Amino acid sequence: MVDAAVRPKTTRPHADNADANLQFDVARVTDLLMGTWADTRREARELIKDSAFWRDDELGKDEHRERVLSQLHLLVENKAVHRAFPKSLGGEENNGGNIAGFEELVVADPSLQIKSGVQWGLFGSAILQLGTTEHHEKWLPGVMDLSIPGAFAMTEIGHGSDVAAVGTTATYDASTQEFVINTPFRGATKEYLGNAALHGVAATVFAQLITNGVNHGVHCFYVPLRGEDGVDLPGIGREDDGLKGGLNGIDNGRLSFDHIRIPRTNLLNKYGDVAADGTYSSAIDSPGRRFFTMLGTLVQGRVSLDGAASWASALGLKIAITYATQRRQFDGADGQEVVLMDYGKHQRRLLPRLATTYAQIFAHDEFLQKFDGVFSGRTDTPDDREDLETLAAALKPLSTWHALDTLQEAREACGGAGFMFENRLVGLRADLDIYVTFEGDNNVLLQLVGKRLLTDYAQQFTGKDAAALAKFAVGMTAGKLFHGAGLRQFGQSVVDLGQVSRSVENGLREEQQHLLLAERVQQMVADIAGRLRPAGKDKVLGAKLFNENQAELIEAARAHAELLQWEAFTDAVHRVEEADTKKVLTWLRDLFGLQLIEKHLAWHLINGRLSTQRAAAVSRYIDRLCARLRPYALDLVDAFGYEPEHVRAPIASGAERERQDEAREYYAALAASGEAPVLEKTLKKNAKR
Amino acid sequence: MVDAAVRPKTTRPHADNADANLQFDVARVTDLLMGTWADTRREARELIKDSAFWRDDELGKDEHRERVLSQLHLLVENKAVHRAFPKSLGGEENNGGNIAGFEELVVADPSLQIKSGVQWGLFGSAILQLGTTEHHEKWLPGVMDLSIPGAFAMTEIGHGSDVAAVGTTATYDASTQEFVINTPFRGATKEYLGNAALHGVAATVFAQLITNGVNHGVHCFYVPLRGEDGVDLPGIGREDDGLKGGLNGIDNGRLSFDHIRIPRTNLLNKYGDVAADGTYSSAIDSPGRRFFTMLGTLVQGRVSLDGAASWASALGLKIAITYATQRRQFDGADGQEVVLMDYGKHQRRLLPRLATTYAQIFAHDEFLQKFDGVFSGRTDTPDDREDLETLAAALKPLSTWHALDTLQEAREACGGAGFMFENRLVGLRADLDIYVTFEGDNNVLLQLVGKRLLTDYAQQFTGKDAAALAKFAVGMTAGKLFHGAGLRQFGQSVVDLGQVSRSVENGLREEQQHLLLAERVQQMVADIAGRLRPAGKDKVLGAKLFNENQAELIEAARAHAELLQWEAFTDAVHRVEEADTKKVLTWLRDLFGLQLIEKHLAWHLINGRLSTQRAAAVSRYIDRLCARLRPYALDLVDAFGYEPEHVRAPIASGAERERQDEAREYYAALAASGEAPVLEKTLKKNAKR
Ligand SMILES: Cc1cc2nc3c(=O)[nH]c(=O)nc-3n(C[C@H](O)[C@H](O)[C@H](O)COP(=O)(O)OP(=O)(O)OC[C@H]3O[C@@H](n4cnc5c(N)ncnc54)[C@H](O)[C@@H]3O)c2cc1C
Ligand SMILES: Cc1cc2nc3c(=O)[nH]c(=O)nc-3n(C[C@H](O)[C@H](O)[C@H](O)COP(=O)(O)OP(=O)(O)OC[C@H]3O[C@@H](n4cnc5c(N)ncnc54)[C@H](O)[C@@H]3O)c2cc1C
Repeated sequence: MVDAAVRPKTTRPHADNADANLQFDVARVTDLLMGTWADTRREARELIKDSAFWRDDELGKDEHRERVLSQLHLLVENKAVHRAFPKSLGGEENNGGNIAGFEELVVADPSLQIKSGVQWGLFGSAILQLGTTEHHEKWLPGVMDLSIPGAFAMTEIGHGSDVAAVGTTATYDASTQEFVINTPFRGATKEYLGNAALHGVAATVFAQLITNGVNHGVHCFYVPLRGEDGVDLPGIGREDDGLKGGLNGIDNGRLSFDHIRIPRTNLLNKYGDVAADGTYSSAIDSPGRRFFTMLGTLVQGRVSLDGAASWASALGLKIAITYATQRRQFDGADGQEVVLMDYGKHQRRLLPRLATTYAQIFAHDEFLQKFDGVFSGRTDTPDDREDLETLAAALKPLSTWHALDTLQEAREACGGAGFMFENRLVGLRADLDIYVTFEGDNNVLLQLVGKRLLTDYAQQFTGKDAAALAKFAVGMTAGKLFHGAGLRQFGQSVVDLGQVSRSVENGLREEQQHLLLAERVQQMVADIAGRLRPAGKDKVLGAKLFNENQAELIEAARAHAELLQWEAFTDAVHRVEEADTKKVLTWLRDLFGLQLIEKHLAWHLINGRLSTQRAAAVSRYIDRLCARLRPYALDLVDAFGYEPEHVRAPIASGAERERQDEAREYYAALAASGEAPVLEKTLKKNAKR
Repeated sequence: MVDAAVRPKTTRPHADNADANLQFDVARVTDLLMGTWADTRREARELIKDSAFWRDDELGKDEHRERVLSQLHLLVENKAVHRAFPKSLGGEENNGGNIAGFEELVVADPSLQIKSGVQWGLFGSAILQLGTTEHHEKWLPGVMDLSIPGAFAMTEIGHGSDVAAVGTTATYDASTQEFVINTPFRGATKEYLGNAALHGVAATVFAQLITNGVNHGVHCFYVPLRGEDGVDLPGIGREDDGLKGGLNGIDNGRLSFDHIRIPRTNLLNKYGDVAADGTYSSAIDSPGRRFFTMLGTLVQGRVSLDGAASWASALGLKIAITYATQRRQFDGADGQEVVLMDYGKHQRRLLPRLATTYAQIFAHDEFLQKFDGVFSGRTDTPDDREDLETLAAALKPLSTWHALDTLQEAREACGGAGFMFENRLVGLRADLDIYVTFEGDNNVLLQLVGKRLLTDYAQQFTGKDAAALAKFAVGMTAGKLFHGAGLRQFGQSVVDLGQVSRSVENGLREEQQHLLLAERVQQMVADIAGRLRPAGKDKVLGAKLFNENQAELIEAARAHAELLQWEAFTDAVHRVEEADTKKVLTWLRDLFGLQLIEKHLAWHLINGRLSTQRAAAVSRYIDRLCARLRPYALDLVDAFGYEPEHVRAPIASGAERERQDEAREYYAALAASGEAPVLEKTLKKNAKR
């Protein structure tokens, strides 16, 4: 294992212009990135400096699973995982801090992060959020201290994204006051559940609640899997998912139930209850709204994936950029070998991804604040909940996809060394792969966001006639349209983006970036809404038109999320006082904004938002920003605040620099000795003279 | 392990329009895809139906390595790997067929493919291509029958892409007529070599040849690593690379040489020799050209990666598309659950990648023909060699990146099931990850292509004045400019693409696609050349300007490669006689062409090649093509010709369909029994009436 004590020695490259010699305040930026729960993050990072929490790459699946289980016990001992639980049970009722702390575990081992998430974030949360005091008192202590490891059993073989359609039934038997949990066919087997293959002794099981001949939809039940003797109860079926593409420290598996009887009171009954006689009652009348309310209480999984994925990207870039400032390949014009980070292409590969990572970390902190507001009860209206869920559905897809993209690019940017497991990049990528699927498949989530945007859009029109509508669509700014989902207004100076100003770059500054990004969301949604309109009440035509526009709706949702990230980044930059640091961060924000605009350049051109001349300037401007940011690349990744015990990749340890120094010294000594062989090429050249 | 005997049962969805009921001739298309060496491919596929060749996912790294070694012996027994070797030694001197056969091994286990490649394609080829008859007779029999497993030792810790700069020295000692092979510093340690950690008993080592005080550049030497006793010879250092991101069936490792003495005649001396007295001689005068000639003989690695990556993409799509035609999620307008493949977004995710895979397989066959022509000696001029190398440097990056992208999208398209190792997608992706780096890093290769394009471009101008140049640049078609690298002319009817024809689609047919793709390459190269011109003879400025344009040059090279793929696809379509099949393949080719145009839409707009109106039509047209191709999706992946023993993924076996049938039967029986619970929602609706 790498000697974590080696600290990299790297310096900023020489440069004689003022832009390359700004005072970039690394510590200040670290604070900014760490965000609202910086203290908790630092605490968690301190804890996982202990190698007991690190992933051990030598272990096979089975040993890895046991190691991670024991690490969970260590977390309990260190009181690292109880922040969200009720004070009455020894928790802190600190929802935001709890998630922040969890997220940091990703750099120790993603399996550890996710298995903790299953235990305390899913299984525990289901009891906490869907159960009532009796349930809390009965089971939460065991959940918290890990004497009850549990599975969260929602997904089935047949239904993952469409949870409402699960096949497991919970049929109430008034004669014994029990629910009968049953798996009626193979496809209704619960599948992919963490803790299900081995460690779970109980599960929170989602099933169709049937009483008095009526199906009240999906509810959650506490189901013991094992007796005191540690043996599975009769009727419990358990299978191991075996090897996965990553996260092999978690024992995912399948669970089936053959008419398992549980007491009536094992229904987690906060949002719906069954009386002894079988009468169903709920404070929420609509079964649809009730179902979504229950699911909504479990949003924290998405919150923490968004954060963990963003920080994993940060770690990947820390490794690749540190290496890129040391590794040399090919001679430059001066006969010296060029440091990778000085290549134009290498900058283009890594720096826009760095900018995006910053944007996501800032957006995540806002998201976490919103989450904390709702779950602390401070700002907990149905609208707040809906906004939070939309935010989760918008941000989680982008950050988890970005992590895969970034870790892969980082891997490739390190060449063969990137493929060595010890250098972390391949392992992180393999583990994070599934983040784009679980806690809601990314494409399915973005579709939800798209639908919300369409609904928001439609609501503006209630009671307006066609002429008013047309005017409205022209005059409206995105901020007014989608306030619900977090948009805000910046400068608002209306500029004619079609016109070329003296410097094309002037047309690509903060305000214009905002306008371009915001108007794109608005216009895309309006366009899609227009294309869906002919359906009217015709359900079949509606479904057909929707399907034809599905890909574009998902793209609109993505545009919306990108805008939110851009806004969060911009807010963060505005909070910085120090002029030099602010300048560098503004470049980075510009890089983020411009690469988004570059990605969608055709759209801006087709829709007349950019002249071809200004559009042509976008890519050149990005190149210039990359060159300007180059001297700060290392500072910008150092600002993530990772220490050698978090990084652990030998290629980011300074070893490459040491090897190169050794090679240079060898050649220098050889030259000095007068015994260096002369190159045939040189001989030939001299002979020609 | 999956029961490979289960054959999927899937049917084409109903559709009442003629376009959905074409007679698509799967067998004919399979022949087309299998290409020139179809027989060899079929032979190889037949061989690897034997489970002895399959990857066993249960094995840890160490057992996996031993299994793959034993599989190599099996290949020898089956005479599956000697096609390229001299007839005099029992080979067939069949270069194209040899590569075709190797490539197919990827679906058995990529580790098997690559380890075979190291043994017979790299280690063996170095002896064959760089050595002379004496070397062939002495070592090739042992290489062929695997009694001499060997490493190909080119890369060093310090130098991968820049092979000319390796630090290992081979210094001639005339007094003993030996070369002294030495690793002068840590960075000069040979690194990442297959067969180096364990199995290699010899190596072909690339080192700076120094004799009489002159360094003649990198040459290749045959270096024994172990004695008869199986123990490493004194001075040989060997280290294990340990766990990697994939290909863990191969024992990659490091080799170092502490003044190892080998006979003078162990220099593989085809392109450069040292006489007993130390006099160096070579038929190639320029050391630079000599070096590139030697490297050029080893191009076959790139050829086979291009093919293997394309076929791995095919397998990924076979799995994901088969599953997508069975898997259902969410109710449709008719109350039935919708098959994934019917979702607009799902089509957009998978079908363009299918089109690209077809293009790559067709382009690969042309590439393989070119390779065979050169290596058989039939068409072996320096120009042919240069074209071949450019082709390799252009195609290998695109197909290997495409494989990663496609396998990932396939994985995500299968949801959680895609992450299960048994379903193949994650394992294939992990193994193929490094294909983008070894045998030449993709970005470095594309840069070579870009330089070649610039050179070709510049050559047109020799002796022309500025006015002639300007005229030239306007009038020239890409076909004329870059004939060397394989471009050809199609229809050549000059159309005004800026003008909107009656149907916008009319402006996006074959000829226009060709023109758009070809002119883009030409214009990008011309633009970059123009931006580099100010440098003149100023080396430092030249390097600076080059670096500023590096990313775009790589993009131009990619555009060039895309054009070649498009042309190959089009040629293949033209070879099809059957009208219906041709129609479907034309749609697929259009999909390939249009998604390329869509990807670069902003470029076409900025450069005035497309009107905004026609540009706006591109995406809609793609959607329409996807919908048209939907009924043939399964046929198109069946045409890859894979049998269950090649596919082996349970999710593509028909099991999903069986589970769904079971669930439907359950619900149907329940409904028939009259005991089905009524939905609360339905009750509420009825109550309102
Ligand atoms: C390692 C791992 C751990 C997990 N842990 C748990 C756990 O602890 N508890 C638990 O309950 N679950 C768990 N899951 C399950 C996970 O949440 C599901 O896999 C996920 O929700 C996706 O469901 P699915 O696999 O059924 O995919 P599907 O829903 O079948 O989706 C497959 C594909 O179809 C696409 N698709 C689906 N619907 C549409 C549509 N309407 N339009 C367009 N495209 C569509 C999706 O984008 C996706 O690409 C885990 C999964 C894994 C792999
Ligand atoms: C599993 C495995 C098996 C292998 N097997 C063998 C083997 O059997 N024998 C053997 O000899 N070698 C082998 N290799 C080595 C392989 O060929 C090298 O890793 C590869 O050539 C890249 O070299 P590098 O790792 O030194 O990366 P580098 O050359 O250091 O490149 C690192 C990064 O810098 C970028 N870069 C480099 N130069 C430039 C430039 N001028 N401009 C812009 N960007 C640049 C690249 O794009 C890359 O992303 C193997 C490697 C692996 C991982």
